[in-house]
Amino acid sequence: MNIRPAEPRDADAIWAILEPVLRAGETYALPRDMTRADAVAYWTGADRETFVAEDGGRVVGTYYIRPNQQGGGAHVCNCGYVTDTAMAGRGIARAMCTHSLDHARARGYRAMQFNFVISTNERAVRLWEEFGFRALTRLPGAFAHPRLGFVDALLMFRTL
Amino acid sequence: MNIRPAEPRDADAIWAILEPVLRAGETYALPRDMTRADAVAYWTGADRETFVAEDGGRVVGTYYIRPNQQGGGAHVCNCGYVTDTAMAGRGIARAMCTHSLDHARARGYRAMQFNFVISTNERAVRLWEEFGFRALTRLPGAFAHPRLGFVDALLMFRTL
Repeated sequence: MNIRPAEPRDADAIWAILEPVLRAGETYALPRDMTRADAVAYWTGADRETFVAEDGGRVVGTYYIRPNQQGGGAHVCNCGYVTDTAMAGRGIARAMCTHSLDHARARGYRAMQFNFVISTNERAVRLWEEFGFRALTRLPGAFAHPRLGFVDALLMFRTL
Repeated sequence: MNIRPAEPRDADAIWAILEPVLRAGETYALPRDMTRADAVAYWTGADRETFVAEDGGRVVGTYYIRPNQQGGGAHVCNCGYVTDTAMAGRGIARAMCTHSLDHARARGYRAMQFNFVISTNERAVRLWEEFGFRALTRLPGAFAHPRLGFVDALLMFRTL
């Protein structure tokens, strides 16, 4: 697998990965009816660096890294990761997380924070725990899950 | 005191209140060198409602309220408050917080979350506690204080 900075030509591939995740609305706090333009603008915004994971030349995942806060909070980064739903379980998220931790250290970040990991997204929670993240708190009922109703979101954190 | 929606004509007054707070860099995770244009655009952005508190026709404080997350997280709101530093201790922040809680309920929000209360901003922490907010966690060393070095930030939350 090759992980490289996203380029404008990747917009179609990024949208193909994001669209089913957004439409399902179960793992990201983004509008379920978000348009392609808004989603790509969000994911590749000027406030972040965006990467794509390629396998055999095909984009199979994408992630961004950005400062979680500005000013005095800019030494803690935040990331978001999405994998092609058809390619789940092949280590793509794992590879992207490893890459992001290395990249964060290279950029001089001192910690990484995930603000809003949906508690019912158990595979993600387990993976981040394997990577050394700890849930500092549960935000009670902070996510309206389309099937399960109000569920908790986790704030996960690790130093670098 | 009268609290009303901010209008474009309030930009000068909002900037006069924000500027010393931003330049000090001790209570908000925003760039200390933020320009007037960027600061006013941030504080009155399209993703939020912005209010000003007037006393005798003079703007003495301002706050915003916005969804803290999009999509399935949009039922929890987030606010930011700033008071004219020359008018501290006169109940302006208290009046704005009361207004924001009422406004949040009227808008149908179910909870209010402050993502990043600087732990050394003791007056703010005490005030939010009086208003029923609890620190769900401390984000370790998440804020680079210009005088004190790395200090914790608090995530504070209350249901409505």
